[in-house]
Amino acid sequence: MTGPNPRFPAPENVSAEAKAFLSLPVDTSAADRPSPTSAEEWEAQIAESNGMFEALVRESVEKAPVVVAKSTMAGVTVREVVPENDADLKRDRVLLNFHGGGFTMFGGDLSVLEAVGPASAGYRVVAVDYRMPPHHPFPAAVDDGVAVYRHLLETADARQIAMFGASAGGALAASVILAARDQGLPLPAAAVMHTPWADLAKIGDSYETNDGVDPTLSTYEMLRDAATAYADGEPLDHPLLSPVYGEFSKGFPPSLLSTGTRDLLLSCTVRLHRALRAAGIPADLHVYDAMWHGFQLMAPVEGKDLDREVMEFLDRHLAV
Amino acid sequence: MTGPNPRFPAPENVSAEAKAFLSLPVDTSAADRPSPTSAEEWEAQIAESNGMFEALVRESVEKAPVVVAKSTMAGVTVREVVPENDADLKRDRVLLNFHGGGFTMFGGDLSVLEAVGPASAGYRVVAVDYRMPPHHPFPAAVDDGVAVYRHLLETADARQIAMFGASAGGALAASVILAARDQGLPLPAAAVMHTPWADLAKIGDSYETNDGVDPTLSTYEMLRDAATAYADGEPLDHPLLSPVYGEFSKGFPPSLLSTGTRDLLLSCTVRLHRALRAAGIPADLHVYDAMWHGFQLMAPVEGKDLDREVMEFLDRHLAV
Repeated sequence: MTGPNPRFPAPENVSAEAKAFLSLPVDTSAADRPSPTSAEEWEAQIAESNGMFEALVRESVEKAPVVVAKSTMAGVTVREVVPENDADLKRDRVLLNFHGGGFTMFGGDLSVLEAVGPASAGYRVVAVDYRMPPHHPFPAAVDDGVAVYRHLLETADARQIAMFGASAGGALAASVILAARDQGLPLPAAAVMHTPWADLAKIGDSYETNDGVDPTLSTYEMLRDAATAYADGEPLDHPLLSPVYGEFSKGFPPSLLSTGTRDLLLSCTVRLHRALRAAGIPADLHVYDAMWHGFQLMAPVEGKDLDREVMEFLDRHLAV
Repeated sequence: MTGPNPRFPAPENVSAEAKAFLSLPVDTSAADRPSPTSAEEWEAQIAESNGMFEALVRESVEKAPVVVAKSTMAGVTVREVVPENDADLKRDRVLLNFHGGGFTMFGGDLSVLEAVGPASAGYRVVAVDYRMPPHHPFPAAVDDGVAVYRHLLETADARQIAMFGASAGGALAASVILAARDQGLPLPAAAVMHTPWADLAKIGDSYETNDGVDPTLSTYEMLRDAATAYADGEPLDHPLLSPVYGEFSKGFPPSLLSTGTRDLLLSCTVRLHRALRAAGIPADLHVYDAMWHGFQLMAPVEGKDLDREVMEFLDRHLAV
């Protein structure tokens, strides 16, 4: 159902844009949606969800001073997103991006959504259009990520590569780094994980406390079917599915994590931060008051502030 | 009233001790308590609140390998807390501590509560028994803090001094640093602010979202009278009252801030962190899942993890 009002008023200390968004009704209808029972039903549901974002992504690419080029790397579909003006390119640095969307949505042309910003800021971004359910469950996405990273290492220095992603993509960035490390590849220079879906099971306080409070990812019930489809029978505490259980003491790059106090994945994010810190990994946590899942792409003021943190962080950790 | 049950079950990913505490009823009776209308009524309320902690603090001092010595510095009452074994002392380093308690409670012998841990770990801690309402409202506490700091600087190097505090004491540590800086004193080497009461007004999302959820500081109504008494007519957004409004771009030391996702002051903490970061101050934020206001003194597992972060942070920033 859609509640007539958000459970809590917007606090006065957020931007006007955020305040307006936080004053809209919270839609929890996804909780009542029947679970897909076949590949066809999955495809229909994914197409419907993606359909709501297609115009938005197309416009964002058209308006930004970037060029998108589709290709394959090691057999995996990728889209390279680079500044229109070649002179703006931060030479030799590469950002490897894993899109969000609950391991089911935002594939194909939508996969560049989060790549446009960093490319506008001068980075070469390789957005991985990793395989997903219903046809390609875990570990296809991790395998694709590692394959693209291995390919990039043929021409780029790991010290000049960072991985980043949001939501499912934030968790996938962590899993790809863990898997690549265990296969003997060098660590990338840095990892940026916005609101990472670090525990696929309903474990962590904010799955309860922010249920019906987060205006975009309003309930775990929006994630349950995707977790089941993606895991494909593997236990959800497998560290490459839920990286909060990863062994970070064997090595992980300096990390930046972000979330908001109304984020359904607040607990996933702070738990992953603690797991990194427990292993002694340098890890910066940024929590924005009253912000929700995915605010970094939606709230212009708060999102821009986070962009600045990310750019500063990458400048600090990526070799020139 | 006291609710029969906490609003949310304890998540499975916290320590057994934290789980037990989170399963107790949340007491919100302070919201119904009549506001003190005279100095005598304040004194009675403060004595009643303090009374619940006296045995706890006395025992904690007796059990710890520390020595407490009461004295005055620049006319301000302080208690120096040092390791019993002189050989354990981290020579020449000093931690200046401001106790919590909403600018009304935890004065006198209780003021060493937070000093015992760092002194057990080898630090010389100067716990400031700063003046408080009802007889000494703002800016007495700030003045006392600056006076003690100025006194310490006669014999100690600012690069060997850190300030720390929790709740009201976390905010006071920030205010004392801002005031000392504006008076031309050198910045201390570091600041540690646990769950700082950084905005005395009811501004910030968690004053609403964690109302009745935080098991210790269960509602802003426990703070309202204290804010009024302490501010004594000054606007609550005065930066030395509510340091979230401080001008950090003029200088502030590297900082560590901590909170929990159920903390009523979660928003105060993350907002202060953002204010520091907006000014380019190195500031580490640590957020513990499902933890409450003051968990650092109560949850043995999570609190010990935070102690480790603090000790590492101080080692990194304090000159030898």
